[in-house]
Amino acid sequence: MTNIAIVGATGLVGKTMLEIIEGKDIPYSSLTLFSSARSAGKEIAVKGETLIVEELTEEKAKQSFDYVLMSAGGGTSLHFAPLFEKSGAVVIDNSSAWRMDDTIDLVVPEVNTPSLKRRIIANPNCSTIQSVVPLKALADSFGVKRVAYTTYQSVSGSGWQGIDDLTRGEKGEAPKNYPQPIHHNVIPHIDDFLDNGYTKEEAKMINETQKILNDDAIDVTATCVRVPVLHAHAVAINVTLEKEPSVADIKNVLGDFPSIVVMDDPTQNIYPTPLDAAGLESVFVGRIRKDNSLPNTYHIWSVSDNIQKGAALNAIQILEDLLSRKED
Amino acid sequence: MTNIAIVGATGLVGKTMLEIIEGKDIPYSSLTLFSSARSAGKEIAVKGETLIVEELTEEKAKQSFDYVLMSAGGGTSLHFAPLFEKSGAVVIDNSSAWRMDDTIDLVVPEVNTPSLKRRIIANPNCSTIQSVVPLKALADSFGVKRVAYTTYQSVSGSGWQGIDDLTRGEKGEAPKNYPQPIHHNVIPHIDDFLDNGYTKEEAKMINETQKILNDDAIDVTATCVRVPVLHAHAVAINVTLEKEPSVADIKNVLGDFPSIVVMDDPTQNIYPTPLDAAGLESVFVGRIRKDNSLPNTYHIWSVSDNIQKGAALNAIQILEDLLSRKED
Repeated sequence: MTNIAIVGATGLVGKTMLEIIEGKDIPYSSLTLFSSARSAGKEIAVKGETLIVEELTEEKAKQSFDYVLMSAGGGTSLHFAPLFEKSGAVVIDNSSAWRMDDTIDLVVPEVNTPSLKRRIIANPNCSTIQSVVPLKALADSFGVKRVAYTTYQSVSGSGWQGIDDLTRGEKGEAPKNYPQPIHHNVIPHIDDFLDNGYTKEEAKMINETQKILNDDAIDVTATCVRVPVLHAHAVAINVTLEKEPSVADIKNVLGDFPSIVVMDDPTQNIYPTPLDAAGLESVFVGRIRKDNSLPNTYHIWSVSDNIQKGAALNAIQILEDLLSRKED
Repeated sequence: MTNIAIVGATGLVGKTMLEIIEGKDIPYSSLTLFSSARSAGKEIAVKGETLIVEELTEEKAKQSFDYVLMSAGGGTSLHFAPLFEKSGAVVIDNSSAWRMDDTIDLVVPEVNTPSLKRRIIANPNCSTIQSVVPLKALADSFGVKRVAYTTYQSVSGSGWQGIDDLTRGEKGEAPKNYPQPIHHNVIPHIDDFLDNGYTKEEAKMINETQKILNDDAIDVTATCVRVPVLHAHAVAINVTLEKEPSVADIKNVLGDFPSIVVMDDPTQNIYPTPLDAAGLESVFVGRIRKDNSLPNTYHIWSVSDNIQKGAALNAIQILEDLLSRKED
């Protein structure tokens, strides 16, 4: 008997969670869909059954769910996740609200395992997930000292609003979501600015990388940029290792790691692009080469669907992991 | 009496050179336009006069021009630039053919001065120009030790063909110029691949930066990426200095340097994007901040129109500099 609830079921990540639950045939005895008041009443078909989306209220959060997948923004998470937790559920939360809380696990199943000190598990930032998967492979074999990220982030990272803004731009209309037009443009500004000149998105990549790899000694920096792509983020990762493996060694280690697909043969023009990764589950890596401007340093180009592995899929994989432990 | 010829007059850079010559009212006694056989016969109006584009032949290259602006690809340059030189002209060449030749000057007028050992002057790579302008400002005041570039390069960098490919993609058609679709995509592949896994474009940025800044001790690396933007490139520059100035010091030094416009106030969402820079002459910089992952290291986001300062305008500025010396 597994009672599952999804909060934010009509959002882009929520909708994708439902598709993955159907596609993987995740077993449940009941599935309850929550949304804001605005989307409540909508009908969504899952596994042949038509479900009616309900407005989330404090009363409803007291129902006894086993697992609650939340993707409804930080404010909703801060308010409702503890209520679900108190009612006995394990919450897997896609917002940034809980990620850096010391008592909360921040989990990428290929990389780390939740301690379950609390029954709230945080799903990391999309660009961070597709970066820490290859970095964990490198950390295990060669040690990681420093990481510099430069990102190319698709508009689906902003949900339906981001996609709408790109579509609006293509029709010659002004943006409603982004501070600048995104059509035929790139915007070096994702989430709000902090006093130190970094954006919150950049701070997330820095802090979450250290937390997930469980190593505060890794120096991390980031520049995050929105690009006019619909699906899949690309991250140019510049990584300094403790050791100095050959590029072939690095390709072998990455190729042997779960979820990673190495697409790297310049002689055949093979490297991943966002269009290659859109809708797929893996983290695709290519353009792997030595950076001769610093010792023990390498370039890796990582591409993955930000709504799949970067959000909904990673959350479902955390759920699958919990379900399999329950069976053991 | 100044006789000027433009080779590649119907190309995107050639057309822009003509617009700049008109706009700045560069004086000449004759202006001759050359192209390939395919475009010969076309009529172009300049300063109210209708000029007929001629096919460039060896015979015509023996005419006595004072200045020849070439933007017609490496093969044409290698063949014809020495012929023009022999006939007494100074050639300003936009191709990559001559740039790394030890006897040839590679010039950005704000940064370095041609020695004129040879009467062929090379115009640098577009992404390199908008990077070395701020780097020269920093080198003069604080010393530059290492530079890591990550680029967001517009399709106009590939001339009309690049713009056509983006337009084709927007109509649902397959690309003809790029190895992958560029519409709703980013492609980490500009120019051909080298054996070391870098592209020629990345190698250009590395080698030309050292040559223009006249310092082989500067360590440089690059990742070059095409993005679905029409005009203006962005370069995320990560720079390590000899000294450790404050961010305010860096902004002051950049703001005082010719051609640089500092657009950097995160509290007001002010930073440059390609749409801001398109059609303009300056190098716009923003997102200036300390990179705490390495000592004395900073992030700078540089945006400039790749056809203006990145190509046609820089060539015309080299010409203007030569014309003013002639007057002295």
